[in-house]
Amino acid sequence: MFEHQIKFRVLYSDTDKMGYMYYGQYAKYLEMGRVEALRSLGLSYKAMEDSGVMMPVLDLKLKYIKPLFYDDEITLITKVCKMPGTRIYFEYELLNPKGKIATVAETTLVFVDCATGKPCLIPENFNTKIKPYFF
Amino acid sequence: MFEHQIKFRVLYSDTDKMGYMYYGQYAKYLEMGRVEALRSLGLSYKAMEDSGVMMPVLDLKLKYIKPLFYDDEITLITKVCKMPGTRIYFEYELLNPKGKIATVAETTLVFVDCATGKPCLIPENFNTKIKPYFF
Amino acid sequence: MFEHQIKFRVLYSDTDKMGYMYYGQYAKYLEMGRVEALRSLGLSYKAMEDSGVMMPVLDLKLKYIKPLFYDDEITLITKVCKMPGTRIYFEYELLNPKGKIATVAETTLVFVDCATGKPCLIPENFNTKIKPYFF
Amino acid sequence: MFEHQIKFRVLYSDTDKMGYMYYGQYAKYLEMGRVEALRSLGLSYKAMEDSGVMMPVLDLKLKYIKPLFYDDEITLITKVCKMPGTRIYFEYELLNPKGKIATVAETTLVFVDCATGKPCLIPENFNTKIKPYFF
Repeated sequence: MFEHQIKFRVLYSDTDKMGYMYYGQYAKYLEMGRVEALRSLGLSYKAMEDSGVMMPVLDLKLKYIKPLFYDDEITLITKVCKMPGTRIYFEYELLNPKGKIATVAETTLVFVDCATGKPCLIPENFNTKIKPYFF
Repeated sequence: MFEHQIKFRVLYSDTDKMGYMYYGQYAKYLEMGRVEALRSLGLSYKAMEDSGVMMPVLDLKLKYIKPLFYDDEITLITKVCKMPGTRIYFEYELLNPKGKIATVAETTLVFVDCATGKPCLIPENFNTKIKPYFF
Repeated sequence: MFEHQIKFRVLYSDTDKMGYMYYGQYAKYLEMGRVEALRSLGLSYKAMEDSGVMMPVLDLKLKYIKPLFYDDEITLITKVCKMPGTRIYFEYELLNPKGKIATVAETTLVFVDCATGKPCLIPENFNTKIKPYFF
Repeated sequence: MFEHQIKFRVLYSDTDKMGYMYYGQYAKYLEMGRVEALRSLGLSYKAMEDSGVMMPVLDLKLKYIKPLFYDDEITLITKVCKMPGTRIYFEYELLNPKGKIATVAETTLVFVDCATGKPCLIPENFNTKIKPYFF
């Protein structure tokens, strides 16, 4: 299993009139979690895209257990629990400042060859970097 | 079953560098679908909140089947498939301009008494308006 | 002068914990105002971009006079007050449900040739459609 | 003069189909700049709001000089150039990874007493912390 952790603060921009982080604002932080998880492996999503492989999102699941409040410092844990093939499956936990799980999420992404628009295998350098976490 | 339909256009604001509607931009359109579905029943979410009941989102599921493109006119179908109690469960379909299902989604919301912060039953006037669709 | 009007409703997504439309949410509605103003002239921004001319924004000014509230139906007036050349200058007024000016805004956009990345003149068909409003 | 600096990375979420950071995505980073500038002074915007003073934005000006690209690490400089009274005026510079000024911005905010909804003077502890930068 591969796991990475970032922290972010809930912005005013993220809140709604209920005083909570709006349910549609989480997806961008999950993106931040994924890209920083890759960067911690020495991988750049930008470089992967420039080399001709993109990773569109196939599905998103979010379970809002406790609200996140303005200015809270949130810990976002991003996990890859099984070795990716043509798809990569991420799981996420968002912890509130008390360390309690506030939100859990899952996304499936697929490797796509930009030239053909068809799914493809995980790029070689990505495979090399992530394999040690599974074998 | 209760069903309602709106149309919206994909904004430049919604797109990302892949040229698709960004996966995190869908949630606000689902909100628009819900609130307009309620309005078509003669219900105002704002009035409900002003009267002391709010409806936080408990979970969100999105399945991105086909991409949505800039300036596409999208049909969003919002459905309530079973009679709500303390929770209300919405299903959604987004159709692209060719009428093909591009995205499906589900959300669960809970009625919460603003005063106590505790779940409560569906408000009386909401119950009255939606009941005919189920019985 | 050319002028066009649309209406939109403030979403929960647009609000912040102050209960107002967040100051960063206006820009996307100004975009909606521009693109619908062009469409009312028989022009498609998408078609223009597909034909090789894009219109990046050079500057944005927003003056927040009165707050916009959740579920308010807002009237957005988009104006082109002088004949565009290589730049097009839009002015906007947002009216609250009482018809009072709540926000005023201005943007400057420039026509750019996608191939060279350089500013270019207003495309011929755009010129033809908008000229009658000025001469 | 008081000045503070943060860094952020352009998210996929921030980009549009032109491949640039969308012109409407800047405002939230300016908010981040302001709140972190205050925090560096030992001030919490959240605590100020909890104590009954809020700071709505009166105006926003943005000048987009060079585009910001996906995954660029941006330096955001936030400045308060004159001693605040009932209003506080911020200026901003966004530097691209080459250190070039890509965007400049200005905002005016007003101190408002939450109880009365009327403008008020800068809160005492804010005044105490920021005064040394001007006198």
